[in-house]
Amino acid sequence: MKPKAVEYEHASPAVKAVFDDIKATRKIDDVNNFWKYLANDEKTLRRTWDSVREVMAPGALDPLVKELIYVAVSVTNNCGYCIASHSAAAAKAGMTAAQFNELLAVVGMANETNRLVNGYRIPLDPALET
Amino acid sequence: MKPKAVEYEHASPAVKAVFDDIKATRKIDDVNNFWKYLANDEKTLRRTWDSVREVMAPGALDPLVKELIYVAVSVTNNCGYCIASHSAAAAKAGMTAAQFNELLAVVGMANETNRLVNGYRIPLDPALET
Amino acid sequence: MKPKAVEYEHASPAVKAVFDDIKATRKIDDVNNFWKYLANDEKTLRRTWDSVREVMAPGALDPLVKELIYVAVSVTNNCGYCIASHSAAAAKAGMTAAQFNELLAVVGMANETNRLVNGYRIPLDPALET
Amino acid sequence: MKPKAVEYEHASPAVKAVFDDIKATRKIDDVNNFWKYLANDEKTLRRTWDSVREVMAPGALDPLVKELIYVAVSVTNNCGYCIASHSAAAAKAGMTAAQFNELLAVVGMANETNRLVNGYRIPLDPALET
Amino acid sequence: MKPKAVEYEHASPAVKAVFDDIKATRKIDDVNNFWKYLANDEKTLRRTWDSVREVMAPGALDPLVKELIYVAVSVTNNCGYCIASHSAAAAKAGMTAAQFNELLAVVGMANETNRLVNGYRIPLDPALET
Amino acid sequence: MKPKAVEYEHASPAVKAVFDDIKATRKIDDVNNFWKYLANDEKTLRRTWDSVREVMAPGALDPLVKELIYVAVSVTNNCGYCIASHSAAAAKAGMTAAQFNELLAVVGMANETNRLVNGYRIPLDPALET
Repeated sequence: MKPKAVEYEHASPAVKAVFDDIKATRKIDDVNNFWKYLANDEKTLRRTWDSVREVMAPGALDPLVKELIYVAVSVTNNCGYCIASHSAAAAKAGMTAAQFNELLAVVGMANETNRLVNGYRIPLDPALET
Repeated sequence: MKPKAVEYEHASPAVKAVFDDIKATRKIDDVNNFWKYLANDEKTLRRTWDSVREVMAPGALDPLVKELIYVAVSVTNNCGYCIASHSAAAAKAGMTAAQFNELLAVVGMANETNRLVNGYRIPLDPALET
Repeated sequence: MKPKAVEYEHASPAVKAVFDDIKATRKIDDVNNFWKYLANDEKTLRRTWDSVREVMAPGALDPLVKELIYVAVSVTNNCGYCIASHSAAAAKAGMTAAQFNELLAVVGMANETNRLVNGYRIPLDPALET
Repeated sequence: MKPKAVEYEHASPAVKAVFDDIKATRKIDDVNNFWKYLANDEKTLRRTWDSVREVMAPGALDPLVKELIYVAVSVTNNCGYCIASHSAAAAKAGMTAAQFNELLAVVGMANETNRLVNGYRIPLDPALET
Repeated sequence: MKPKAVEYEHASPAVKAVFDDIKATRKIDDVNNFWKYLANDEKTLRRTWDSVREVMAPGALDPLVKELIYVAVSVTNNCGYCIASHSAAAAKAGMTAAQFNELLAVVGMANETNRLVNGYRIPLDPALET
Repeated sequence: MKPKAVEYEHASPAVKAVFDDIKATRKIDDVNNFWKYLANDEKTLRRTWDSVREVMAPGALDPLVKELIYVAVSVTNNCGYCIASHSAAAAKAGMTAAQFNELLAVVGMANETNRLVNGYRIPLDPALET
């Protein structure tokens, strides 16, 4: 019952089409394990790629900021693979070591103060209601 | 046993000093409930303020990006107070509605793909090990 | 589809028996909402009461320490009802305001450092492997 | 301080009795590590086995659906051992690859929309209040 | 900075088109707040609706089972809105009170045993590696 | 982009000063990986050490209880490194095997009942509001 990677040569045409699209868009030679495992379900692979491409595209936020946010969520959730892959993506998008350190400092602080708020049962300030 | 806010006029000199520092630094007339509840413990108030001031100061990442990261963590953890207060702080730091929408889209996507990674038990690509 | 409390007078004999047991054990006049809602399922009510009674009984850890641990988990998970009810239970077991403040300080710190560990992908020291 | 498995031959009579019960109920030759580690605490072993047996028994929901729910929670919490063991249990209960893929798709989607709800601070529709 | 619902009469043509599609697909008179808030971002609204429709459609798992899984995740994450709306959706798909109770019992048990596994640092049985 | 440990001999004077302080305070020959990785950011290292020293110092709660709380949070968050290092720290502070077992039993129970509360949407008893 352990899922396995679907390699290009054994993939269905629908999966190959997504793999080709990822490789062309990202100018890479092979997709990483994330996509090879999602390929166990053509629909999930296609939907996730379409969504990631739309969500992570440059827009009101630039790609580096989006990758920093991705790492922040992944660190909070303790997803090891996601931390590694999106730290690498952030570095590729220009993240410096100093930025990475500050990112983790903010993530740590937010996780701490989130719990202080919970524990002290702090009610919302009226000024924040609107 | 329900914690209560510590208002300035009833605060100890040590708490008043922190409140004064927050108000002067942020150029505001009153501190919000977060600080008034932390004031139940002078040490926690002082330590948290010192830490937040250091971590959220402009550095390799600018204050807006830091606030976006703070919101990303708070949304992932479902801390209602923190979402409201840091969304407001982000808006004050210049966040547009379009940026807020993209922030939430990335946070949603990251929370989804974190679980796809968990469920498919995806091993780290060797290229990501270093 | 919104669950409702099961009040004593409308409860089945099996539910009444658990309610009576809780009231006798804790020397209280009425059970709180937690038990009245669990009473929607006799099995869950009975099993949870049996388990809570066994787990929270004085043992190698005293009841106050057990309540502090309960609050620590509830704060980490942001369960508002649980934070309120177990803070009250801890206070009843002797928790002082100073102890409550220190509890939250530790919970906050642990939530912060947990994420620093995740983000920096810190490997276990060999000395901790055994 | 690293917990160790308690093997049958070194177990107390109380632990052996639970192990025997698990093996007879599930028609297996040996219990898995989960039970061998819980055996460090006879009370926890006994209570957990009694609870799991009651909760996972066929009832209003069939065993396969219960295992799918177990996997959904374990994936959300990122418990690697639990994902592996309950994916295997679900497969044993008849889960197909297609069902597994759909399970993960729903889990991913739910984790995403949970955060969109948090971030947009969506109030409950009056029709959902009852 | 508090997000607001986008009502049909003030919506853009693109948003109206999604709202119309949801209403026609689900045979309802109005969409609920979830969609009205997502409508702050046309892309998120469109993408989420397309994804939810695909993921929640009858397939290898029937719609009731999918809603149970959705509730299981939402309960684990403590998303109040999501618990209410997907409990209602599950009820509409045929969930009985007995099924709801068993669902919660499994979710509770899984959350408990997930932590026992973490705390005892239980290694994967070799038989589960494949 | 994988963070690396900063060893004493390659550390800056500021990092060496913190390492020396930790070693002197804890009467140990070398700091563990946690500190060596935080040393990638002098500010985070200094701030975290100052905070941990203050928060974990004997106070209204004794050091063993504080370590138990730390483990409870780490188990709930599934931080493997943190579970190992703080279980070890708790053992050093005097935790017995029986206390460890009871700690995990309470953590498991709290994680379970937190979700029963969420799922049944249990409202706060008026007596707990104050």
